[in-house]
Amino acid sequence: MSDRLPLNPESGMPDAAGNGLMDRRLLLKQGLVFGATAWLPTATARTDSEDKPGPDLARPQWMREPGREFSSYGVPARYEQDVARFAAPNRVMRNNGSSWTPLHLLEGTITPSGLHFERHHNGVPDIDPGVHSLLIHGRVERALTFSVPDLLRYPLRSTTCFIECGGNSNAGWNRVPSQSQAGYFHGLVSNSEWTGIPLGVLLQEAGVKPGAKWVIAEGADAFAMHVSIPLEKLLDDGMLALYQNGERLRPENGYPLRLVLPGWEGVVSVKWLRRLELTEQPAMARNETARYTDLLADGSARMFSFVMEAKSLITSPSSGMVLKGGPGLYQVTGLAWSGRGRIKKVEVSADAGRTWAEAELQEPVLPRAFTRFRIPWRWSGAPAVLKSRATDATGYVQPERKALIAQRGRHGFYHYNGIVNWSVDEHGNLGHVYDEAATEHGATPDIDADWN
Amino acid sequence: MSDRLPLNPESGMPDAAGNGLMDRRLLLKQGLVFGATAWLPTATARTDSEDKPGPDLARPQWMREPGREFSSYGVPARYEQDVARFAAPNRVMRNNGSSWTPLHLLEGTITPSGLHFERHHNGVPDIDPGVHSLLIHGRVERALTFSVPDLLRYPLRSTTCFIECGGNSNAGWNRVPSQSQAGYFHGLVSNSEWTGIPLGVLLQEAGVKPGAKWVIAEGADAFAMHVSIPLEKLLDDGMLALYQNGERLRPENGYPLRLVLPGWEGVVSVKWLRRLELTEQPAMARNETARYTDLLADGSARMFSFVMEAKSLITSPSSGMVLKGGPGLYQVTGLAWSGRGRIKKVEVSADAGRTWAEAELQEPVLPRAFTRFRIPWRWSGAPAVLKSRATDATGYVQPERKALIAQRGRHGFYHYNGIVNWSVDEHGNLGHVYDEAATEHGATPDIDADWN
Repeated sequence: MSDRLPLNPESGMPDAAGNGLMDRRLLLKQGLVFGATAWLPTATARTDSEDKPGPDLARPQWMREPGREFSSYGVPARYEQDVARFAAPNRVMRNNGSSWTPLHLLEGTITPSGLHFERHHNGVPDIDPGVHSLLIHGRVERALTFSVPDLLRYPLRSTTCFIECGGNSNAGWNRVPSQSQAGYFHGLVSNSEWTGIPLGVLLQEAGVKPGAKWVIAEGADAFAMHVSIPLEKLLDDGMLALYQNGERLRPENGYPLRLVLPGWEGVVSVKWLRRLELTEQPAMARNETARYTDLLADGSARMFSFVMEAKSLITSPSSGMVLKGGPGLYQVTGLAWSGRGRIKKVEVSADAGRTWAEAELQEPVLPRAFTRFRIPWRWSGAPAVLKSRATDATGYVQPERKALIAQRGRHGFYHYNGIVNWSVDEHGNLGHVYDEAATEHGATPDIDADWN
Repeated sequence: MSDRLPLNPESGMPDAAGNGLMDRRLLLKQGLVFGATAWLPTATARTDSEDKPGPDLARPQWMREPGREFSSYGVPARYEQDVARFAAPNRVMRNNGSSWTPLHLLEGTITPSGLHFERHHNGVPDIDPGVHSLLIHGRVERALTFSVPDLLRYPLRSTTCFIECGGNSNAGWNRVPSQSQAGYFHGLVSNSEWTGIPLGVLLQEAGVKPGAKWVIAEGADAFAMHVSIPLEKLLDDGMLALYQNGERLRPENGYPLRLVLPGWEGVVSVKWLRRLELTEQPAMARNETARYTDLLADGSARMFSFVMEAKSLITSPSSGMVLKGGPGLYQVTGLAWSGRGRIKKVEVSADAGRTWAEAELQEPVLPRAFTRFRIPWRWSGAPAVLKSRATDATGYVQPERKALIAQRGRHGFYHYNGIVNWSVDEHGNLGHVYDEAATEHGATPDIDADWN
């Protein structure tokens, strides 16, 4: 903390960083501890006697008639229909593409299964779990097939982790800042509690033959989606997932079974898994050569990079939102995650990166899982730029966009994890800006949206 | 471990307890470490060459046609329709009663919001969040009303905890063991990540007057459900919840806002909250006097007991299931929770309580939240009785049913947390039995199912 920062007039405490970022513990429990209630949104003071029920206590319509009966499986309130995935299908083939999790409308860390992002190559297959089976073959002592009932009897374990598409946040490479809402820009990532079988158990049962180094994983969708995975990762912490957030997998997340490879780009967590073939070499399949590979400035390609590096994103307030209450106290909140382990800290800036304050991290902070961060901010009413910056347990710091481009060039498409800037104008409208003073100019057009 | 226990013939390691309970680390990662794959369910060995795709690789129907397109909000697979809440409405008034979470069909620790148990007194109100408001009044410096948009601007925090109805597992008091499936016997408990406002912030803003000791909380349902809560609990860790598992509350869980009082009986976590009135005395409302109070053997009543004591339940295998694979390895798994803090350990017995082995606890173990436990069991094919016993961080040990009845008498209805016994017969069929040799006989009939 710098002593040049203004004092909070209510508490006499210095701010935590410039332009109104306050101590992260403020209001964590009891407002008066920090004397900050004057900065809260304005509740309406009632003028009638405190002991006599006033007009506010009139019973609304829904207290004057019996409510709905019990339901076997609940759905969201009808007032929340805008909290939905945003589908971006391929223009020609509508079963190929992705749909995005509305991260800007969610809170906490769990992604509801109904809102988990989707990435399909030829739609969601309607698989009968009584017919589906998993084959393990190739360089093994004995090829084995497992029915779903077989697999459900195996010892299970659970892990909470994110799955992020390697192409998430790809608009960050564009020369003009995307004005999509935060989830429709960065929402090819979701966080679930997965339960399944450690793959090591199944692979050992089949018996790994010497020389096996790779595993070709193939899904039972109409694309027969397949990729190559280093055997070591499957043995280390790979999971054959059967459950997602307590219940069996959703169809669009691989029902009845999928791979979950914590911390790695989503494409390798193959859905609707039907086959694991142990091999000496990778398959060099389309989705690991033509796709999910980064073309660098020198013309060489970065392949099989797998791990998703640390990233953070302010989900509220964020692009497209308005600070409706005018100047005053707001909570800045967002998500951070790293494929390499736990998030160590998230810093937030309200002055375009000149000063930073550490945000509060929601406990428990789990490795390779969404970590929610929060910090109170007193908006003065003047234009501002909000940023967040994640540091993970390895010490890796999320890079500024400029540094990422300097390192990786401008021909890439995947694995974008640069710092995001949300601008606030004097009316409280939020947008997306780059650090560079203006939009970049150049002959290279942005990558086409149909990248599937 | 007793050295009288049989050795596991594959690994040479002694069992962890009698009648086949094996070391909890067995198969946690790689089967061969413990040489236990011989006990696994039988996968089918393929007879064709390992390198040539065989008949198993024929493409099923769902690989020969494009799959379903993207959806804005996903739902479970059509093959999982039996994974549903079980409704037990009042015979006369079908909007009053409860619906039960199918704990025996779920895994991990998160309860999907669509399967969270329900307990309503006059149905689920259809509340417009643009009209609803919360009033804080009574013994406060200034009565305040808050709109939902106001509240959404307040600083939020998240906590993962269970909510359990005080009447959960009430069939445990019956003289004849209930043969309901585990979730329809013990499933008035669910576990969610809740996000909301610490109540201390709102109460301090209103200004607590001297003498205020209780808070009357009232819901906006057609029953105007209300209870009395000690002010201290609300200030300590009470939350005004707005989000459940990442998204806004579901209607049947209090949309747009509810109380969440971690560790306390569910009835005080008032849904559809519209009013908090600070008082000197409790209201002595129906649902804290005629209900949710335990009549003890000496005729006195146990009121305002609030905290839900430690409990555990084997969810699989459990009553109504069959060990279809015959003798061999099974994973015994279940849930434990305590209103007083973290679960310290869960022990499992396969010989009706003669010997016990410690189960593996899924990390992270969170205070006042579901804790998943698991232990491998080698079923010999002979009849057996499975039990689980939770111990929490305070050292409290879940009691045997007999001890609970000795302490509380036979006139109670609420707050049952006795150890549950699942019997396994020689055909592998599971049922529910009491420790007592036979059904108890007596003049007192079981409590009527219409207890609402």
